[in-house]
Amino acid sequence: MKESWSAFDTFEPHFRPLVVIELAKDTKEETKEWLTQRIEDKKKNGGAQLLVKPLAKEDGGKIDGNENIYLVGASYLRLLLGAETVGLVKECNDNSMRTFTYSSRKTFKDFAEDNHNFLTMSECQYIIKHELENLRAKDEKMIPGYPQAKLYPGKSIVRRLLTNGILIQFFPLHDKEELKKLRHIWYSRVKISFQPLDEIRCYFGETIALYFGFLEYFTFALVPMALIGIPYYVFAWEDYDKYVMFASFNLLWSTVILEVWKRCCARMTYRWGTLLMKRQFEEPRPGFHGVLGINPVTGKEEPVYSSIKRQLRIYLVSLPFVCLCLYLSLYVMMIYFDMEQLALDYHEENETSFSNLMLFVPSIIYAVVIEIMNRIYRYAAEFLTSWENHRLESSHQNHLILKVLVFNFLNCFASLFYIAFVLFDMKLLRQSLATLLITSQILNQFAEALFPYWLQKRHNKKIKKRMCASKMDSDLSLFEQINMEKEMGTYLGTFDDYLELFLQFGYVSLFSCVYPLAAVFAVLNNITETYSDALKMCKIFKRPFSEPTANIGVWQLAFETMSVISVVTNCALIGMSSQVNAIFPESKTDLILIVVLVEHILLAMKFVMAFLIPDKPRDIQIKLARLEFESLEALKRQQIKLAAESLKDETHEGKKRI
Amino acid sequence: MKESWSAFDTFEPHFRPLVVIELAKDTKEETKEWLTQRIEDKKKNGGAQLLVKPLAKEDGGKIDGNENIYLVGASYLRLLLGAETVGLVKECNDNSMRTFTYSSRKTFKDFAEDNHNFLTMSECQYIIKHELENLRAKDEKMIPGYPQAKLYPGKSIVRRLLTNGILIQFFPLHDKEELKKLRHIWYSRVKISFQPLDEIRCYFGETIALYFGFLEYFTFALVPMALIGIPYYVFAWEDYDKYVMFASFNLLWSTVILEVWKRCCARMTYRWGTLLMKRQFEEPRPGFHGVLGINPVTGKEEPVYSSIKRQLRIYLVSLPFVCLCLYLSLYVMMIYFDMEQLALDYHEENETSFSNLMLFVPSIIYAVVIEIMNRIYRYAAEFLTSWENHRLESSHQNHLILKVLVFNFLNCFASLFYIAFVLFDMKLLRQSLATLLITSQILNQFAEALFPYWLQKRHNKKIKKRMCASKMDSDLSLFEQINMEKEMGTYLGTFDDYLELFLQFGYVSLFSCVYPLAAVFAVLNNITETYSDALKMCKIFKRPFSEPTANIGVWQLAFETMSVISVVTNCALIGMSSQVNAIFPESKTDLILIVVLVEHILLAMKFVMAFLIPDKPRDIQIKLARLEFESLEALKRQQIKLAAESLKDETHEGKKRI
Repeated sequence: MKESWSAFDTFEPHFRPLVVIELAKDTKEETKEWLTQRIEDKKKNGGAQLLVKPLAKEDGGKIDGNENIYLVGASYLRLLLGAETVGLVKECNDNSMRTFTYSSRKTFKDFAEDNHNFLTMSECQYIIKHELENLRAKDEKMIPGYPQAKLYPGKSIVRRLLTNGILIQFFPLHDKEELKKLRHIWYSRVKISFQPLDEIRCYFGETIALYFGFLEYFTFALVPMALIGIPYYVFAWEDYDKYVMFASFNLLWSTVILEVWKRCCARMTYRWGTLLMKRQFEEPRPGFHGVLGINPVTGKEEPVYSSIKRQLRIYLVSLPFVCLCLYLSLYVMMIYFDMEQLALDYHEENETSFSNLMLFVPSIIYAVVIEIMNRIYRYAAEFLTSWENHRLESSHQNHLILKVLVFNFLNCFASLFYIAFVLFDMKLLRQSLATLLITSQILNQFAEALFPYWLQKRHNKKIKKRMCASKMDSDLSLFEQINMEKEMGTYLGTFDDYLELFLQFGYVSLFSCVYPLAAVFAVLNNITETYSDALKMCKIFKRPFSEPTANIGVWQLAFETMSVISVVTNCALIGMSSQVNAIFPESKTDLILIVVLVEHILLAMKFVMAFLIPDKPRDIQIKLARLEFESLEALKRQQIKLAAESLKDETHEGKKRI
Repeated sequence: MKESWSAFDTFEPHFRPLVVIELAKDTKEETKEWLTQRIEDKKKNGGAQLLVKPLAKEDGGKIDGNENIYLVGASYLRLLLGAETVGLVKECNDNSMRTFTYSSRKTFKDFAEDNHNFLTMSECQYIIKHELENLRAKDEKMIPGYPQAKLYPGKSIVRRLLTNGILIQFFPLHDKEELKKLRHIWYSRVKISFQPLDEIRCYFGETIALYFGFLEYFTFALVPMALIGIPYYVFAWEDYDKYVMFASFNLLWSTVILEVWKRCCARMTYRWGTLLMKRQFEEPRPGFHGVLGINPVTGKEEPVYSSIKRQLRIYLVSLPFVCLCLYLSLYVMMIYFDMEQLALDYHEENETSFSNLMLFVPSIIYAVVIEIMNRIYRYAAEFLTSWENHRLESSHQNHLILKVLVFNFLNCFASLFYIAFVLFDMKLLRQSLATLLITSQILNQFAEALFPYWLQKRHNKKIKKRMCASKMDSDLSLFEQINMEKEMGTYLGTFDDYLELFLQFGYVSLFSCVYPLAAVFAVLNNITETYSDALKMCKIFKRPFSEPTANIGVWQLAFETMSVISVVTNCALIGMSSQVNAIFPESKTDLILIVVLVEHILLAMKFVMAFLIPDKPRDIQIKLARLEFESLEALKRQQIKLAAESLKDETHEGKKRI
């Protein structure tokens, strides 16, 4: 073992571990050898041409845990070529963003043959992840040592290893120095300033930076609503004029912020290069299974699964199941209202401070029950979506998000709709809204960050004790660091974080004219949310792989849909308010017609505004047009050269004929 | 003159005239020489490398009309290279569609070095138009002979000649044989069958073929509505159930047909290759003017015009003007209603068959006035949009279409809205709808095809008389043909044809539940419309340049908007019907709430359906994905080759170090 180590060291003096591969404890020797050989093998032999090194204690002592942990790195040149393969976009010397190619490397800003910081560590890790996942079987029929783990030409080896449980996980390493710096400027100091989004992006990648960017943007966007909401609460303004003004402001404001976000997002992702990144052809997701067939797009052998079968599963099983869950959720809601009535009766009988407290109990219980149901439903939705067997990760994600969104929406807002439009009880609506909002915020903060943080702390202590080390975090050796990180939880993506913001947006906008204070609570929550999410990313979870992305995807649509629904609910609420009803004492019909008219005008205005506000700022549009123009020009120059050559021959011939 | 002729003939034995250039009668000799020299010059010298030949009588006699008419053609090789420049997409031997390149020409279906039909005549003409328009000034400061016609490097020469009145027009030649064949299969025989869309596309290009495709599709799509509408009219079904059924069917049907059209359109334009065609960089439109500056996208010198100035013109002049016109139009409408009342009073007083006839007079007058106002407004809109000075032809077109659409919509439908929702007079609504629909259809058919056809016939006769020829159409010499064609009207694009269909769609869908027979009239009109439009294209107008297009553009949006508005109007009409009112005798409030609820559900269903129905059929999606995949693969292969080479060097170096 020692020889190969030193061989590595000689070969690549700057071996920098980037990604950790953890194989199962009982992995056979031949499998390990085959895998490392495949990873190290030359590109032309179908390998990944990366560097692999088994993890060992610094003092050369025996490892008492899992011995099958490998570190993966790559030479600087290999990384640069990988950057070209994944289509990374970097800034050039003339400040424009261009797709990186090895041959044009000298035109890029900060590039130098010995500047190993040209690619950020998370970019290097993304490249290595891409190369590992694209390490494909050649003529192997199975994974050596595991006859049941079938392979066929073109099958991703890493994915087969994962589905067969041989590969437990592979994850990128934290960079302790960088992380410390990031923590310091991000959340260690208590200060009012913007988040260091560019640094977050360098360390965690675009998807996560974009989430924090959206969180920050959204918080700032809520501030005007919160500021206007406070006097409404303090002075109990309930005049008709001010009421309508506040709601109208909210409705138009929510359209504006969503449109302007697209522009901010485009500006950010242009700076990060992901706006220009070309989409790669999507491979089937790891969990996808089917009989071996020919993919009509690639013409390659891969599992195929009938689209009709999938449609049947979706419409005959998933859809009824989701409807059943929605019904169940409505049923629980009705129980809640019975409880509420009981509490009210009790309070009226006794009128003590205890009975007054009891009034809040049903709401709190209901909020807790909702949280529990949400979590159970999530498992079911994930199971069902896996079972639907979508070929692409994106389509899997969209179906999952749709299922979860609908259920969460109903769960959170059905009771409020019921109170508002069936019971017509504005006082109860306001109270329920406040209770639901605040309870769910507290629960979320607790469940999401503080509880796992406490668990993690306890766990880390245990590990450190086992290692008999009283050193500080930053003094941990690589061996200890990896052993600690591999036990950390895996960050499952930004889904839950966006969902939380989505529901919060619902609380703020759907019934904004009834409870103007909602925006205030949302702003306060988001400030602490920023800190707890930052803590979560830096302290609790393994470092996630960076994931390039150009926008927040389906969430933009979800937020826009919510803002359309909020126009309808707010108009209805205003129409039902006693102040407005007092204006039309005679004819309720006129009132309704006017409300409907106003609603339609507002909806039309929303659509016109969404149409008129360009999705990208003008300077970004010009930069994009410039890039497109340049590539067209390059093509044209090439064609003119060819044309000139061909026509020269022809003219020559023609002259000869004369 | 004779020598240069024979030189041409020797040089290119198959000179086929494709495009005609007509210069002003008094064009200076040096200008003509310079222009022909520039057109014939080699590509590398900045010329267009096309063939030019002055028009002369077959018998060599003197021309008594305009002598400055030139014929433009090109060698076959030049056309093939031009096809590559404009990015033409053709079918390959393996039935897939690919961008044509000269080097891969052998892989294309029907390609042979001597098969001059590989490119259709309209494709050749499009290529020549593209080359002529892209003939740009080099170091000329002005057009020789015209010091006032300034040029600067990169300015399109043809456009400068056009704006200075030196070039009167340039148009593609008709192909008498092909046209005869097309006429025969298109409309000469009276038969029930689909239109020969592929042949129309070959002769007139994609934009016009797509219009006829849409017209045909739309007519077929209206048939179910017409079939269901007839029994409603015949049996005077006005029960609540059937009423609602018909309207609901209409609403969902209109969504379905618009979504399915996108799929049909994608299938057609894939077959024609335009779905895959890359958009070229847009040059400023001919009428655009401004001070000379630097374009931020191309970095080239060209006129620039401040975007703020344009915005000011739009919002401070155009918008108020449009609003004024809309107000005027409403004012005229009110006068119409006064007249209508007068006629009604007269009828009630007299009750003769004359007074009965008089009842229709106001509607007819109003319809005629609307047509006249429309036409005046069109001139104003075109003037204003030119004055707004848009840089791009597409943005100019969009602003023009928007102005004209809004005015036409109000003009045609305001009176109907007034009758329906202010007067609540369903009988009058039905009668006005019928009168407006039928009058405007008859007027349009007359103004659009029959009247110009008659004018053209008379004009042709005069020309033929002047030429003292009693020959048939097909026996005309090239000289006579060109002299006849250059006097023909210019087809101004599909705008008016689409507008007519758009308004017809409005008549059919907005008030469908009141007048179910509208669809029947629309179907009948569209059948004759197909014939009169075909006649118009083949007989009345100059052949238009083919214009590649992948969809019907802004019209898709316009039709979709109309179908959203029709949900609102139909729901309101049903809510107002006496049958529905009879169900809720007590509470009008409940009725309105239910109608509003139904309307919201229908709107939501429309959006969900539009979202769920994919815009492209599955097989087209797969073909597009396959093309994208292939280009990605080609890129990757290139990169892997490069990577392998680079890494070979590195490994070599590494070994040396060991």
